[in-house]
Amino acid sequence: MANSYGKLFRISLFGESHSEAIGVVIDGVPSGVELDMNEIMFEMGRRAPGKNAFSTPRAESDAPEILSGIFKGKTTGTPICAVIRNTNTRSKDYTPEILRPSHADYSGKLRYNGCEDYRGGGHFSGRLTAPVVFAGAIAKQILKKENIDIFAHIKNIGKVYDDCIDIANPDIDALKNLKWETLPFINKDKAKSAEEEILAARSDADSIGGSIEAIVSGVPGGVGSPFFESVESRISSMLFSIPAVKAVEFGIGTEFSELLGSQANDSFVVENDTIKTKTNNNGGINGGITNGMPIVLTATIKPTPSIGREQETVNINTKKNVKLKIQGRHDPCIVQRAVPVVEAALAITVLDLILEAKTYA
Amino acid sequence: MANSYGKLFRISLFGESHSEAIGVVIDGVPSGVELDMNEIMFEMGRRAPGKNAFSTPRAESDAPEILSGIFKGKTTGTPICAVIRNTNTRSKDYTPEILRPSHADYSGKLRYNGCEDYRGGGHFSGRLTAPVVFAGAIAKQILKKENIDIFAHIKNIGKVYDDCIDIANPDIDALKNLKWETLPFINKDKAKSAEEEILAARSDADSIGGSIEAIVSGVPGGVGSPFFESVESRISSMLFSIPAVKAVEFGIGTEFSELLGSQANDSFVVENDTIKTKTNNNGGINGGITNGMPIVLTATIKPTPSIGREQETVNINTKKNVKLKIQGRHDPCIVQRAVPVVEAALAITVLDLILEAKTYA
Amino acid sequence: MANSYGKLFRISLFGESHSEAIGVVIDGVPSGVELDMNEIMFEMGRRAPGKNAFSTPRAESDAPEILSGIFKGKTTGTPICAVIRNTNTRSKDYTPEILRPSHADYSGKLRYNGCEDYRGGGHFSGRLTAPVVFAGAIAKQILKKENIDIFAHIKNIGKVYDDCIDIANPDIDALKNLKWETLPFINKDKAKSAEEEILAARSDADSIGGSIEAIVSGVPGGVGSPFFESVESRISSMLFSIPAVKAVEFGIGTEFSELLGSQANDSFVVENDTIKTKTNNNGGINGGITNGMPIVLTATIKPTPSIGREQETVNINTKKNVKLKIQGRHDPCIVQRAVPVVEAALAITVLDLILEAKTYA
Amino acid sequence: MANSYGKLFRISLFGESHSEAIGVVIDGVPSGVELDMNEIMFEMGRRAPGKNAFSTPRAESDAPEILSGIFKGKTTGTPICAVIRNTNTRSKDYTPEILRPSHADYSGKLRYNGCEDYRGGGHFSGRLTAPVVFAGAIAKQILKKENIDIFAHIKNIGKVYDDCIDIANPDIDALKNLKWETLPFINKDKAKSAEEEILAARSDADSIGGSIEAIVSGVPGGVGSPFFESVESRISSMLFSIPAVKAVEFGIGTEFSELLGSQANDSFVVENDTIKTKTNNNGGINGGITNGMPIVLTATIKPTPSIGREQETVNINTKKNVKLKIQGRHDPCIVQRAVPVVEAALAITVLDLILEAKTYA
Repeated sequence: MANSYGKLFRISLFGESHSEAIGVVIDGVPSGVELDMNEIMFEMGRRAPGKNAFSTPRAESDAPEILSGIFKGKTTGTPICAVIRNTNTRSKDYTPEILRPSHADYSGKLRYNGCEDYRGGGHFSGRLTAPVVFAGAIAKQILKKENIDIFAHIKNIGKVYDDCIDIANPDIDALKNLKWETLPFINKDKAKSAEEEILAARSDADSIGGSIEAIVSGVPGGVGSPFFESVESRISSMLFSIPAVKAVEFGIGTEFSELLGSQANDSFVVENDTIKTKTNNNGGINGGITNGMPIVLTATIKPTPSIGREQETVNINTKKNVKLKIQGRHDPCIVQRAVPVVEAALAITVLDLILEAKTYA
Repeated sequence: MANSYGKLFRISLFGESHSEAIGVVIDGVPSGVELDMNEIMFEMGRRAPGKNAFSTPRAESDAPEILSGIFKGKTTGTPICAVIRNTNTRSKDYTPEILRPSHADYSGKLRYNGCEDYRGGGHFSGRLTAPVVFAGAIAKQILKKENIDIFAHIKNIGKVYDDCIDIANPDIDALKNLKWETLPFINKDKAKSAEEEILAARSDADSIGGSIEAIVSGVPGGVGSPFFESVESRISSMLFSIPAVKAVEFGIGTEFSELLGSQANDSFVVENDTIKTKTNNNGGINGGITNGMPIVLTATIKPTPSIGREQETVNINTKKNVKLKIQGRHDPCIVQRAVPVVEAALAITVLDLILEAKTYA
Repeated sequence: MANSYGKLFRISLFGESHSEAIGVVIDGVPSGVELDMNEIMFEMGRRAPGKNAFSTPRAESDAPEILSGIFKGKTTGTPICAVIRNTNTRSKDYTPEILRPSHADYSGKLRYNGCEDYRGGGHFSGRLTAPVVFAGAIAKQILKKENIDIFAHIKNIGKVYDDCIDIANPDIDALKNLKWETLPFINKDKAKSAEEEILAARSDADSIGGSIEAIVSGVPGGVGSPFFESVESRISSMLFSIPAVKAVEFGIGTEFSELLGSQANDSFVVENDTIKTKTNNNGGINGGITNGMPIVLTATIKPTPSIGREQETVNINTKKNVKLKIQGRHDPCIVQRAVPVVEAALAITVLDLILEAKTYA
Repeated sequence: MANSYGKLFRISLFGESHSEAIGVVIDGVPSGVELDMNEIMFEMGRRAPGKNAFSTPRAESDAPEILSGIFKGKTTGTPICAVIRNTNTRSKDYTPEILRPSHADYSGKLRYNGCEDYRGGGHFSGRLTAPVVFAGAIAKQILKKENIDIFAHIKNIGKVYDDCIDIANPDIDALKNLKWETLPFINKDKAKSAEEEILAARSDADSIGGSIEAIVSGVPGGVGSPFFESVESRISSMLFSIPAVKAVEFGIGTEFSELLGSQANDSFVVENDTIKTKTNNNGGINGGITNGMPIVLTATIKPTPSIGREQETVNINTKKNVKLKIQGRHDPCIVQRAVPVVEAALAITVLDLILEAKTYA
């Protein structure tokens, strides 16, 4: 279903931006896992708005209440439901008939026959990624026991690009520390430049896009399946669920299209009795199945469509062309907030794949 | 499951390159559809190898035998099974212990505990896309009755790029005729240049990559769902099932990352009493749901890893580094053969979405 | 997944008897449905305990809080989450090591590696049927708009059998009024006798079983599918999800095994230009697909295993045989409380089938 | 989908009685399993018609051709497709407008908008159980390696009942040998009486029903899940896929409805350091999860509706009441042929559950 993902580790999202609450039900959690709640709250804090000049000054309370599935501090194996109340919802006059460009106002209205809860973006709000991060934080902790780690950095914001990662032998220590950064660039000077770009966009009542490169380390070879359950299929279907993601690339992604086979192929090599590839252009996946190299992918995040500048659009009731200036609090850049969401999405998917791999190992 | 795709229109693939046969079971086909078998064979011919200098000289017989699901020339609504015999299988000495770089030899061996049928690529062979094209050809015919059409052109082969399409108002007539082309470029001069690139790769015992841009016209707004069943999620999970696809972009895709919101947003406008967008950067999808504009996407096709040049690799039995020169018949470029596969994959996905849309319309 | 059911109308349960709350997420609800909350509360009240001498004196508060999916009194089409707090949970000393016979204590402990929340039956508690009734009450209201109604009566409690229903031409008015009854027998004298049986069981610190016959009227012919999605498959998998159901029969069910074909077959007949069957031994289903006659089925409800009498069992820690006298509040009979649960389960399944039927009609 | 079953071990059926072929695709088969083809053919032979006076004299050739998924005598782990040609199809004048009572003629026609292949029962033919037996025979061989065995006997044919099995401690040796019997009764005298009943029905141009009791031994405790993936839910949805099954009971099934809790409960007891239950009224399942006792269930098989006697029915074209005498070759009793089908269905389901159990063990 639209709001459920996963075969064995499965999440079901619910909620609208201004409904009583948003939340998630997580089924298929392995039993007996002691959860580090501080770690979960830390991950949620990474996504939360209102923390700096780059993101909306709204001070959301994202503290989840756990209703089920945990007993004596451990997962029971039955569903965990976590609920996040919508407390800071401004009561204001919405004009849902004025379609906000590049938002889901129009497509959502058609989909739900005009009955959608349009307040604050409703079910399409980026706020729905908070329960994704909650579920992902749990998945991360379970994966860590199998020595699987997930990292991400910002590849670019606008035209400011971070340093390239060696995707065949990534510097894990450098990546590990990025979770403390406001703008997780490996190169701090580039972070500074990116910050300037974001502030410039903000002062222009504009927004700016970017991309995120993520790495999953520690996944053994032989995980995943051919065709419709390829690792690429599973991961991409999850990543494209995140609002604003418009492209997903594995390994060197779009660069493949300009290369020759002799340039693109990843040679196998034996190192310390282990089979590896010299390069990792394929991002750790051959034939839909992991080959033991780091899984590497890039997600493009479009500039948030909520901008303060005047835009041309339509009043759906009168079917007249109108001008629109979106009021209120907006993120000039959501790329940095999307980083923990991409990581969470990956954790959920990879855990699901790892659980399934137990059935064919 | 790995080899099944779809909720309501569902395909299940089977077969290996050198097994008795490959094929597909298609369930959920609407009943009473009169199928044009010539059209199906035409689509399969577009994918078939051995037709020109750009593709492998193997003369596969891709004629499918239909075992069920059609009665008196019409679909019954019960499953269609089509079988394609593997007749032209060379009996030769395989050395599966020598891992072909960037193929699924290694990951597949780990996945299937060394029991995979390695002959000719086995279940990972591109030949498995023939039944996908068969199923897609049926889906296309059903969609055509709802005025939904699917077109694709080659966006680039290596550094040779086709002309840009106006993705907000594509020239449907130009696109329609591309299905007759060996190299479906809109700009015939570019096709000529691309041909030269391919022939150069061939004479170097090399291969070359490219990308395919596809357009789905006629899908009404309001189709699809938020989050995990977003149109992007559904389409990407299908496209990444096609061997060699390593990136999927919607609308302007990766270009979003360098743009400002004011540049990226698609303004709504009323034209002839119809709500449209001026631009179509989002590729017809907002919030995971169609907005009535053409669905536009790009799939990157990596250069086929089967090249005649000497490569470094590993013998998995001895765990020694070895040299490999892949013998035999290979496509220097598979991009043009992937075009009908991408179209078929889209047709299958879009039909599944359209059937589901009947439940919430 | 274990706790999710449905293809298009989908519910996901969560909660344990003594966790913070239990609840349900319902996805795929048609948008724009005005819900009658009183009707929902009435259905939940039918299931609630503590109302009479036949059921446990616990006064549960089953008032659900709706967190999402309803806006301006109508369904939005996005997920509805309803939460029921667990307020009346006695803090007492549990001895989960003493396995209660015929409960899930032992199998659940094995399934969840000893990490299950055992308090009050945990996730296996009959209390989890409250959110099923909530979801079913919504499904019932949607079905009613398509003139589909669901009724049930108690077929027997112990050896006291209700009058037989004419399952080819059921007396709908008689069935309709049963929802007001404490013991929904058509024959009031039999209800009185059943009451005596229940009170006798109660005074013996025992419990008593029974069976429920349910009828779905108004489902058109041609709904459902052959084989694995037969109407019988779909309904039975749902009914066997209800704790204590141990047999499911369609039409005359087990009676078929003693009959000849000439006795069992349902002759077709034309009445008022409509094709019907004279008898309805098959319970409205042929080849897994509805034939337009009422869907009829019987579910056997085992006597609740919670009895006050001394029982032999095992201490799982010491692996010694021990005696057990279950303390506390128990239902001597759960059959009457299971009636609205069976109706709800049917409503959920039938709505899901009806939605899917829109795709092949 | 209608014709697919399973989460991890998954089968997809196709074919009609008179199409080119029927068959099955099996996905998720563990790799590296050496299959005993004689054993598979033996199982298929048990189901095959034409072997004695009790079943139709048609001599079907059920020899399956395996198209994929087996290499060097072992399963590859990729899908196995098996095809059974329809060779012995009589060309005769069908009158599909005359609805055969209790067959799927009418419901199927509505479901498929009159486009169904009606010849020989089409997709609804009992012949479609041949590929189920094929898949089940593979599942049985895989389960046997985990010491899981499946047996069944006929519980009754008409009013002739076999001896009761001790379902807490079944006599496995007696059950094992039943697979060689034409009428698998434990009590040979009862088999003789049943034979007389069947022959009497045949000479009256009639048919007769019965029931099958099946036992799965060796399943460890803790397999399965609560609610919608209870072992009962999974097994029943599979069993009700078999044409002619109209009731499914677990353990003592319908008998529960007349019992007190003190009579029905299965006491736990320690024997040889193993926890067991004294009785097995619950058929090895508590709370939807196995408890380590044999899984026991009964499936009711209705008398086949194809009888030679004159029946009342309707001509759907003229909408007139008409008389019908079904011509041709019919089984007077299908219960004995359904025995291997029930066993196969169980094997498929139990293997799927066992594979899933690896993910939470």
